[in-house]
Amino acid sequence: MPGLLSSLNLHHHGLNMGRSSLTSLFRTSRLAVQSSSSPSQINHNTNVSTTTQEKPTLTIDNLNPNIKVMEYVVRGPVVIRAGEIEKELEKGVRKPFTEVIKANIGDCHAMGQVPITFTRQVLALVTCLKLLEDPYFSDDAKMRAKLILAGCRGSSVGSYTDSPGIEIIRKHVAEYIKRRDGIPADWQNIVISAGASDAIKNLLKLFICDVNGKKPGVMVPIPQYPLYSASLAEFNMHQIGYFLDESRNWGLDIAELNRSIQEARKVSNPRAIVVINPGNPTGQVFTRENIEEIIKFAHKEGLFIFADEVYQDNVYPEGSKFFSIKKVLMEMGAPYSNMELASFMSCSKGYMGECGLRGGYVEVLNMEPKVKEMYLKAISAMLCPTVLGQACLDTIMYPPQPGEPSYNNFLKEKNEVLESLKLRAKMVADAFNSMKGFSCNTVQGAMYAFPSMKLPPKAIEEAKKQNKAPDTFYAFELLEKTGISIVPGSGFGQKPGTYHFRTTILPQPEKLKEMLKKFAEFHKKFLQEWS
Amino acid sequence: MPGLLSSLNLHHHGLNMGRSSLTSLFRTSRLAVQSSSSPSQINHNTNVSTTTQEKPTLTIDNLNPNIKVMEYVVRGPVVIRAGEIEKELEKGVRKPFTEVIKANIGDCHAMGQVPITFTRQVLALVTCLKLLEDPYFSDDAKMRAKLILAGCRGSSVGSYTDSPGIEIIRKHVAEYIKRRDGIPADWQNIVISAGASDAIKNLLKLFICDVNGKKPGVMVPIPQYPLYSASLAEFNMHQIGYFLDESRNWGLDIAELNRSIQEARKVSNPRAIVVINPGNPTGQVFTRENIEEIIKFAHKEGLFIFADEVYQDNVYPEGSKFFSIKKVLMEMGAPYSNMELASFMSCSKGYMGECGLRGGYVEVLNMEPKVKEMYLKAISAMLCPTVLGQACLDTIMYPPQPGEPSYNNFLKEKNEVLESLKLRAKMVADAFNSMKGFSCNTVQGAMYAFPSMKLPPKAIEEAKKQNKAPDTFYAFELLEKTGISIVPGSGFGQKPGTYHFRTTILPQPEKLKEMLKKFAEFHKKFLQEWS
Repeated sequence: MPGLLSSLNLHHHGLNMGRSSLTSLFRTSRLAVQSSSSPSQINHNTNVSTTTQEKPTLTIDNLNPNIKVMEYVVRGPVVIRAGEIEKELEKGVRKPFTEVIKANIGDCHAMGQVPITFTRQVLALVTCLKLLEDPYFSDDAKMRAKLILAGCRGSSVGSYTDSPGIEIIRKHVAEYIKRRDGIPADWQNIVISAGASDAIKNLLKLFICDVNGKKPGVMVPIPQYPLYSASLAEFNMHQIGYFLDESRNWGLDIAELNRSIQEARKVSNPRAIVVINPGNPTGQVFTRENIEEIIKFAHKEGLFIFADEVYQDNVYPEGSKFFSIKKVLMEMGAPYSNMELASFMSCSKGYMGECGLRGGYVEVLNMEPKVKEMYLKAISAMLCPTVLGQACLDTIMYPPQPGEPSYNNFLKEKNEVLESLKLRAKMVADAFNSMKGFSCNTVQGAMYAFPSMKLPPKAIEEAKKQNKAPDTFYAFELLEKTGISIVPGSGFGQKPGTYHFRTTILPQPEKLKEMLKKFAEFHKKFLQEWS
Repeated sequence: MPGLLSSLNLHHHGLNMGRSSLTSLFRTSRLAVQSSSSPSQINHNTNVSTTTQEKPTLTIDNLNPNIKVMEYVVRGPVVIRAGEIEKELEKGVRKPFTEVIKANIGDCHAMGQVPITFTRQVLALVTCLKLLEDPYFSDDAKMRAKLILAGCRGSSVGSYTDSPGIEIIRKHVAEYIKRRDGIPADWQNIVISAGASDAIKNLLKLFICDVNGKKPGVMVPIPQYPLYSASLAEFNMHQIGYFLDESRNWGLDIAELNRSIQEARKVSNPRAIVVINPGNPTGQVFTRENIEEIIKFAHKEGLFIFADEVYQDNVYPEGSKFFSIKKVLMEMGAPYSNMELASFMSCSKGYMGECGLRGGYVEVLNMEPKVKEMYLKAISAMLCPTVLGQACLDTIMYPPQPGEPSYNNFLKEKNEVLESLKLRAKMVADAFNSMKGFSCNTVQGAMYAFPSMKLPPKAIEEAKKQNKAPDTFYAFELLEKTGISIVPGSGFGQKPGTYHFRTTILPQPEKLKEMLKKFAEFHKKFLQEWS
């Protein structure tokens, strides 16, 4: 059974893959961490007070060490190189391809998805009040815009809102949750945020508190979405990796949870567990039974649950169904229904894909009132989440209802996106399963496939020579030869000795077909070259 | 000469003013800090692993201690009470007033300021592409919308942008700075952010790094904008307060800078200095000579300069002029022109006042390349600032030009706002100077007055009985009797034994006149009651 440390080492190994300048930086930082038990404390003899203009005040040696070790591979070295290649193409540099296909990030509109009309109408109306008289806009969009404006001070989206967001929108979120789960939600438990990431970081940082000399620990799935590893590194908290079981379609095994927490207790105080459902990057959708097991485990171990449920609308095959952790936990009754839970949702995914508008929310359940007061105080210094992101969230939480003028079109647009994603989810998994040495689980949900691949020993050797993780070497080769940009598995974490990558399922069907064809051709040649 | 500790004590004293529940929380937290030299390390015997459902996982005892001590008084207890009073009024509770006047926060549109038409047109156009065919919208707004959309992936504001923002907007920012200063700016030094606060926090956190057992120290003016004290508390950095000289219209005295840094070196490593110009809450505009002195001081001491210049458009009386620190530093030549500087700007203030849209930027000068790489990596995990906030910023950085269809109206709207603010700045200072025991400096810039007041000894005694700072007691009395919401000076910091408050100059002229009249009546009665 691979241990915690090997998972961490592997994780660090992922850092070793970038361009040489990045590599040397990361090496420095790793040494800094290893030389001291507390990365926030570095001892050296440089006296910062004697700085002259020749030596900058802020250097790599006295920079926040947590920032040095953090990484966010979704925008890491492969993706940075993809951006450089785009610039080279613009300048007319000849390549074996004419465009970069960005399959590295869940950026729906960038890949051609069309926004939901109702959402954009409401946003235009709250921004430019003159349009409230324009017959092009539907009456329900106008009503909604007026409702949102009535919740804004001075009837302007240019005013600050309360830090947890506009009251009427928080109420719409609570009603959405009630419809989804069949269980009431209290609008005062809803905190609107600039995307889910903002809310996740604000809640994680509440746990920064060493007790009896041990760091706080947070359990995260491996593979995981790198926001978690990046935030835990920034906050100097201990990441406790629990492996998802690839052989059971990335299911969650309680024995593995027990193994990982027991190991982690030696060096940390486990305080919380992150559950990503539907899974990113792994695409699984947990069964209700699996969720019950997780809840019982978290209860037994006294863990606060972070439910990353931003892909709750993205569930594809027959038989797969999304259950929110809140619904299951409430239906299990006491003592489980008294557990602390934070459930995150975003405007960036689902069928709307409004990544750029930065809208999201967290529902916080059973939080100690004094803690909640501190949490709300902490977010108040950042004033408020973007009001137009809040307005976007409103249109998703409270979409047009049957009988309203925008209803039919809304439903058509929503279903078209989700049906197409369902198709593409299958296309991608099928394509990889037909390639030699690849194995890809069913993409039950979310927007990604995370296939495993067997790499020839010679390729692995070459990767080592280049000081790259083998899957990173593969991703760079793919990028340089085809223009396809994917994210190597080492950035998400994977079992030692296995190699993966994450690709989105987001290119439009024709483009996706072309991408998968190019991918298969590349892979065949790669195997020939390195066998 | 009042020392650093007395300034800190006073600052803490400000915490002691809230409702009883808040008070007791803050007490707990203060004890926690005092009992340990490192607030991020708390020793107690509770074993977090034995948590049961009766005891929450996250409690006030194991909560991040830095979150407990931080405060953000602009949204603090007086303002929270103001919100409660608004709710009570809605429910029909009888009060000696019919509405709450929120003079506590620089929230322009909330106080009736009208948005700039060009900005809102562009925002509607990029949101709802159908409007590009609508004759109501001016051609230059349409051109601008198309330019912004061309910078968005998939031509949608719903796509993620690069983490530092859209390239064309960063270039417009650089051109704006060049026009402002007469000195070139490199667009690659511009990082767009969700308001200035976001950028300030992201840069401050780079400095978290204890050296030789001492915390990093950051010099901030006293009185200061509480985002700084809140962020430094959250990051467990040392706040080095330097007093502004109220008797010289809140000018900056180099002897005081020297005193404060010398004292601070005993317990911290001073790394940076924050300069707020025009001043918040103090409203002064520094002379060029004063800025030169600050730069020389920062150079001598090896400090990174944080130039909070978000009020650069808000300068009122004849003879006052805004000089950016960058302009002065570059014109001073080497070695000063090689110094590290971060200059912050926002869409929330100026003549546009778009607080809710969360747009802003920082220009980072002379940052060590390896450090800059780490900085850009650190912000990438949060994906990107809101695209509509970026689009708003674009319209301010690159407003309509002479000859373009929107130019005349833009200029008229801009000048109306600034002229009216100039009038109100004078109205407020004059009004307070005519009240007994008040003294108010000229409001040269920004959006606030920070008058000092002499309080009767009996009132001070009563405040102590109620466990409140005297100025907080005054603010609560004012709120309960008139509905006027201001922020007590203790939240910004002030010389021991002096009492102030911050009020905005933002209520529209008629409303402001009414507010100042009610204020004067209240003050007269207050003096009678407590003499």
